[in-house]
Amino acid sequence: MAGKVTFDAAPPPGTINFGVGQPSADLLPIDLVRTAAEDYLAGAQPIEINYGVAAGDIRFLESLAAFLTTNYGSAVSPDSLFLTAGNSHAMDLVCTQFSQQGDTVYVEEPSYFLAFQVFRDHGLNIVSVPLDDEGMDLDILEQSLQHTPARLIYTIPSYHNPCGSTMSLARRQRLVELSRQYDFLIVADEVYQMLHYFDPPPAPLGSMAEHNTVLSLGSFSKILAPGMRVGWIQAGPKLRDELLSGGAVASGGSFNHFTSHIIRHAIDLGLQQSHLEGLRFTYRRRLETMDLSLQRHLGDRLSWQRPDGGYFFWLKLLSGADTRPLRQLAIEQQTGFQPGQVFSSSGGLKDYLRLSFAHYDNADIEEGVRRVAAVL
Amino acid sequence: MAGKVTFDAAPPPGTINFGVGQPSADLLPIDLVRTAAEDYLAGAQPIEINYGVAAGDIRFLESLAAFLTTNYGSAVSPDSLFLTAGNSHAMDLVCTQFSQQGDTVYVEEPSYFLAFQVFRDHGLNIVSVPLDDEGMDLDILEQSLQHTPARLIYTIPSYHNPCGSTMSLARRQRLVELSRQYDFLIVADEVYQMLHYFDPPPAPLGSMAEHNTVLSLGSFSKILAPGMRVGWIQAGPKLRDELLSGGAVASGGSFNHFTSHIIRHAIDLGLQQSHLEGLRFTYRRRLETMDLSLQRHLGDRLSWQRPDGGYFFWLKLLSGADTRPLRQLAIEQQTGFQPGQVFSSSGGLKDYLRLSFAHYDNADIEEGVRRVAAVL
Repeated sequence: MAGKVTFDAAPPPGTINFGVGQPSADLLPIDLVRTAAEDYLAGAQPIEINYGVAAGDIRFLESLAAFLTTNYGSAVSPDSLFLTAGNSHAMDLVCTQFSQQGDTVYVEEPSYFLAFQVFRDHGLNIVSVPLDDEGMDLDILEQSLQHTPARLIYTIPSYHNPCGSTMSLARRQRLVELSRQYDFLIVADEVYQMLHYFDPPPAPLGSMAEHNTVLSLGSFSKILAPGMRVGWIQAGPKLRDELLSGGAVASGGSFNHFTSHIIRHAIDLGLQQSHLEGLRFTYRRRLETMDLSLQRHLGDRLSWQRPDGGYFFWLKLLSGADTRPLRQLAIEQQTGFQPGQVFSSSGGLKDYLRLSFAHYDNADIEEGVRRVAAVL
Repeated sequence: MAGKVTFDAAPPPGTINFGVGQPSADLLPIDLVRTAAEDYLAGAQPIEINYGVAAGDIRFLESLAAFLTTNYGSAVSPDSLFLTAGNSHAMDLVCTQFSQQGDTVYVEEPSYFLAFQVFRDHGLNIVSVPLDDEGMDLDILEQSLQHTPARLIYTIPSYHNPCGSTMSLARRQRLVELSRQYDFLIVADEVYQMLHYFDPPPAPLGSMAEHNTVLSLGSFSKILAPGMRVGWIQAGPKLRDELLSGGAVASGGSFNHFTSHIIRHAIDLGLQQSHLEGLRFTYRRRLETMDLSLQRHLGDRLSWQRPDGGYFFWLKLLSGADTRPLRQLAIEQQTGFQPGQVFSSSGGLKDYLRLSFAHYDNADIEEGVRRVAAVL
């Protein structure tokens, strides 16, 4: 299963597999986590390892709100936040709380391939809408809504996975208007929002949550460490109350109480902010290296738009060939990529491939692109 | 909502609220967690804060299997275990992976009240089966299965919540036979299995998982700390593979990777075993104190069976009065309990109440029972 590549299998030594959409080991800040954990544990209280308050400890929510206010460029209130056990958990939770079997979820074409299985687990009908340079094509969406009402619309507004593009402000505003007009919920996967390496993106959809049609999903996985399993949903009061009424959180309390205290200390000590700024610096250089390497080795065979943030380059094979059969060849060349088709909910996008620049340093990126060029 | 009592509201100072089914602060081992965390962090590697392997890190699963083998009294293989983010998460996950909206889940009458909302979140039809001293009444179950097929049967085999009773070995074996005959899955909530204070209970239903009809849910919440949000499902290979195929775990990896390393160290250092033995010692004394206090103050007005483990006394008011209206009186007397009706999926059990002995020391238990007697 393609999905397993993303976490189960560390690439074999010597391999430079751009299919892996994960940070490299040098960007997984174990020292930061150790420092934050020790700072927390020095004064930790028994109550902090009991069941946690359902929405998350208020001290965590306040620290998170301050951190988001700084990095989103617009005020975020602790009252709009709800702690999750990461983005995948949040997607699952949203399906449980806000959809019923047989409902329709609209996704972008292409979209994050592992989201599809979450939607299928909940018996949802998946309908796709194409993207252009400004994001989801809302004219096509609106046409489609006439005959197939949406319960949920899943979008990745900033530094899209896989295609790296960012939804314009006008498009974001119109999508929210449509959600009110056609009565659907926007599930905004905003995990790359803070990973901007040039100009920042437009304000997150979370900043438009007051009408109770937006669920903005964020996570510490991309900006700190995936293994912590801590994320959040930003939502208006009505939707947040619906999250709080769920059985699993009523029974088990805060979805990751203990770990949220460690992250709270990481924020309060300023470590999370410095780490984020370090990531922006490092990823920008990796992005630029990959862009230059692609121009050098593959400029005549691929077309692409350089992303301004996130993890990914989305490349179109000018020959129109199917990229899936090339994966075996890539393994022989000790490299790898994700073929475009895995990001299609309807079997298309065969002539695309996704490369992640997050998992390798600049020298490896240069060498890896050379190998990919040999494959293509 | 009644459920919120279980974690959102610490009882006001001076109150002795036996409605709270949580450990007292002195039984939340923050020093143990600190020691285990420091032991882990001293040698922690970056990969351990990346996405974790879906079923859980093999080192964690091996430590957990050894711990369970010791405490279950029967061999548990790491290959039969799947890490969850606690029992409430596990119930939610089981519903997502193994049921469809409109399916029927059988529950015991009474049963753990917060489970009902989890099942309702997934659109399941809840049917109840009465309990007797040996557990779920399987004759009634079998009759009911003739006209209403079950997809899931939710049971709390050992030291039942709320009624403290334990399913006999013969009943456990017959339930597994029925699951094969009638093609349903047993969701065994075995979180109290290791909290035995006299003779141990029969082997957990997890030990009968080889036919792929049992999902045995366990958790560190009752034996270590609820806020860690780490539990497990023990299952046969087919059901475990189905858990591994879920979208949320394929996308996010191990459901609580970082925290599982801390618990692994707690097990490997022997701290988890000593803590469990300490809990057995302390809870036995609290149980005996509550039993004696009840005999002294309420022996003529209530009937009950003394539990041999777990957290709870389940008491029947001999007058047959409804216990719900007495809750307000209990607040005035600075005490509290859970009225029987919350544990009924069909509005019954009005003349029962549940008292937890987990949250208070012996002196408070004596005084609290005196106050409850004044209320009743």
